[in-house]
Amino acid sequence: MGSLQPENFSPLDANLFSEESHAIIDFIADYYHDIEQYPVRSQVEPGYLSKRLPDSPPIFSEPIATILEDIKKDIIPGLTHWQSPNFYAYFQANASTAGFLGEMLCSGFNVVGFNWIASPAATELESIVMDWMAKMMKLPASFHFSGGQGGGGVLHGSTCEAVVCTLVAARDRALRRLGHDGITRLVVYTSDQTHFTVKKASKIIGIPTSNFRELPTSWPLDYALTADTVRTAMEADMAQGLVPLYLCATVGTTAVGAVDPLFELGQLAAEYGVWFHIDSAYAGSSAICPEFRHYLDGVELADSISMNPHKWLLTNMDCCCLWIKNPSLLVDSLSTNPEILRNEASDANVVVDYKDWQIALSRRFRAIKLWLVIRRYGVANLMEHIRSDVALAKHFEGLVTMDERFEVVVRRKFSLVCFGLKPKFEACDRTSELNRQLLEAINTSGRAFMTHAVVNGDFVIRFAIGTTLTEKRHVDQTWKLIQSKATDILNT
Amino acid sequence: MGSLQPENFSPLDANLFSEESHAIIDFIADYYHDIEQYPVRSQVEPGYLSKRLPDSPPIFSEPIATILEDIKKDIIPGLTHWQSPNFYAYFQANASTAGFLGEMLCSGFNVVGFNWIASPAATELESIVMDWMAKMMKLPASFHFSGGQGGGGVLHGSTCEAVVCTLVAARDRALRRLGHDGITRLVVYTSDQTHFTVKKASKIIGIPTSNFRELPTSWPLDYALTADTVRTAMEADMAQGLVPLYLCATVGTTAVGAVDPLFELGQLAAEYGVWFHIDSAYAGSSAICPEFRHYLDGVELADSISMNPHKWLLTNMDCCCLWIKNPSLLVDSLSTNPEILRNEASDANVVVDYKDWQIALSRRFRAIKLWLVIRRYGVANLMEHIRSDVALAKHFEGLVTMDERFEVVVRRKFSLVCFGLKPKFEACDRTSELNRQLLEAINTSGRAFMTHAVVNGDFVIRFAIGTTLTEKRHVDQTWKLIQSKATDILNT
Repeated sequence: MGSLQPENFSPLDANLFSEESHAIIDFIADYYHDIEQYPVRSQVEPGYLSKRLPDSPPIFSEPIATILEDIKKDIIPGLTHWQSPNFYAYFQANASTAGFLGEMLCSGFNVVGFNWIASPAATELESIVMDWMAKMMKLPASFHFSGGQGGGGVLHGSTCEAVVCTLVAARDRALRRLGHDGITRLVVYTSDQTHFTVKKASKIIGIPTSNFRELPTSWPLDYALTADTVRTAMEADMAQGLVPLYLCATVGTTAVGAVDPLFELGQLAAEYGVWFHIDSAYAGSSAICPEFRHYLDGVELADSISMNPHKWLLTNMDCCCLWIKNPSLLVDSLSTNPEILRNEASDANVVVDYKDWQIALSRRFRAIKLWLVIRRYGVANLMEHIRSDVALAKHFEGLVTMDERFEVVVRRKFSLVCFGLKPKFEACDRTSELNRQLLEAINTSGRAFMTHAVVNGDFVIRFAIGTTLTEKRHVDQTWKLIQSKATDILNT
Repeated sequence: MGSLQPENFSPLDANLFSEESHAIIDFIADYYHDIEQYPVRSQVEPGYLSKRLPDSPPIFSEPIATILEDIKKDIIPGLTHWQSPNFYAYFQANASTAGFLGEMLCSGFNVVGFNWIASPAATELESIVMDWMAKMMKLPASFHFSGGQGGGGVLHGSTCEAVVCTLVAARDRALRRLGHDGITRLVVYTSDQTHFTVKKASKIIGIPTSNFRELPTSWPLDYALTADTVRTAMEADMAQGLVPLYLCATVGTTAVGAVDPLFELGQLAAEYGVWFHIDSAYAGSSAICPEFRHYLDGVELADSISMNPHKWLLTNMDCCCLWIKNPSLLVDSLSTNPEILRNEASDANVVVDYKDWQIALSRRFRAIKLWLVIRRYGVANLMEHIRSDVALAKHFEGLVTMDERFEVVVRRKFSLVCFGLKPKFEACDRTSELNRQLLEAINTSGRAFMTHAVVNGDFVIRFAIGTTLTEKRHVDQTWKLIQSKATDILNT
């Protein structure tokens, strides 16, 4: 594993491949073994790494052992440990052995399945696994390839990409009617809880920022968007000569895990002829359990729905499922047929060419990863995984409720608990500041990492459960940490 | 490695992680060992896989051994083997051990470095490695973070993403002057050899298709775009009230490896105030060798430049470097500052938050992969890698030239040779058809895979060298295969 020389340079030498790969496996296994030792949120200062690494690349090969030492010494302290059992921030990115194996196969085969012929198995496995996943979530047949109604699914890297692509399809359908000038009249509808990725995507595809609506939600309605609110906004826009284009509903919003009423919104979207997209990036995974599936009721009215197995379904980064009822609208907007990629199967129109379902030409073989996760674990284990996370969240919720200084701020639906110190223990206007201090005290301790949201004007702490290694003992320890930091803060 | 049960489900169990990961390493090592046995271009028929796999997901866990057997039996036959030494199609996606190790670390840590605090090392290593790469390519200091002029680089997944982001930055800069209505007047300039990804990106960001220029190139000028051609087009557009926005030059075009004259085009872009982007996806890697660096002369005039280490610099998929002189224009267009991601370091504006340099929020830790490739191999080996591929291409070119039935159709600059049967052996109008037959005969044999281009109206065969395992003996064998298939075809 020493230095390599140009005169005999063989970067896929089988022996070295095996030797060094096995060494990395051991390194990663050790990392997981030791992960609780590390501060969850990195404690380095901005610019720390440039003080440690040379500012120019090495001319000569360095041994893998040296590099791994440097990773231990210089990189790991700068990581915020998303796989730590005490990571409760954002939404989790839950890794698993099967997800990791799938990434290895993806990277090892290193095929680029932009069209069918460039690796038929990459395309066909993706279509099959998208149907599997659709069946697991009980999506209607109109979203299955095998449903015979023209629908189907594709793997993207992120929700933003899924939203960009569906927005472009919706936009181009509208512009075929309005002419290209119409682009300045198109309006996108979301709630004030919708992920900002939809706003960013709208901006990317050329919708004026002034035509982006973030409609109000409220605590009494659990931060769900109402159809009436959307209708009023659409009517007002149409009265101004604007054209409603796209409505995004969310199942499991980022801030508080809210669920928009899909059925009502879907009916409204149909009435106004707008594209109806459902972003279930986080909570969509829970639909594989019958007891959570009802949150997706109304999905049959959607034009498209996306969810991210890389959040809560044990699939390592990155993996975003997008299903669409009428993929030909995607293809109309995103297809390219350059001579250089022409081939018999594509010309005969008997295959899917996924390059026409996404932004980029190149694409990784993500399907094998999702396929491995589903096969290795099976639906029963995946359901157990979701249920045990929700059970832990319920348990945490119980702990919060039992301490009279605290409250759960928003009704919990999945594995996210939004909580904080109660206003009554301090003047109301100080509560947000106290919760901010509490959160910073927890995170600075290095023993857990959470993030926050501001809802209804209040700063709340988000406790998002879902990291693969999190067990009850971690939740209990973290709750004790929270209580103790709260005591410190309330006593100062 | 058997079936897993829900009552004791532990998907990151350290022992099982090690055991199964080592098994996959051995599986991939065997795959590389046996890779020459497989037909390079998959020989399956459309729909083959749905006949072999169940149409519903398994309820219960399956052993990894069973899954690996199925991969051998069902998936591998459907792969087109991009890592085969006899893969000469498209441009290569060259894997390496270091690239694979980097992907393992990326996937093992599984951090999501959308902003600095979410994993400081992910952000800082990316900035450092982008500076390293910029120095390797001798990009001017205006593109380095350490250059003190505000420039810097980011890792994207694909050229298309890099082009979308720079186009959006250019568009929004122009629209601040023109108003949003101006979007229908903006014009993008490319040559008829430019990768179609630029056309797709332009469409995505809302440029009317009618405002996309694919300007003519020609054989006598080696398919390079001339500044005069662009000037004429811009003047004509401006006379119509249109507004030149973006000019994309290419170093190493996809069809024939052409190089546009960067200096002349850059001067013109400056004169007309348009964004000047350089796409060096494939050939940019060669700039690490002094003898190829001159193709990038004029890069100092560019606003942005992209290149893909996942093509020719031993970095497994995916990895696209984008450097930009004025990243604040990217950030102006792509930044989002939702409350939920607010943190001290970002608020103090002392760190890079890469989410504002790209389309998506989520991002993989690609930097550790590129860093590992550069450190493990060192610049000297990477230069040798480029040089040996170019030497093989020269060797192949020599073989073609020695057989009087064949000709090299376009002057070779890098490791791509465009060749075909000479017209004089048949009536001119039949040559394209013969070359098409020849290519299909080669690919159907399963012993090599090449793709084609049509230039100057002629069908030519592209022989793209760069797959990691390709050695002189493979090129020699493949040439014999080509000769023999040509003999068959010319004798029928």
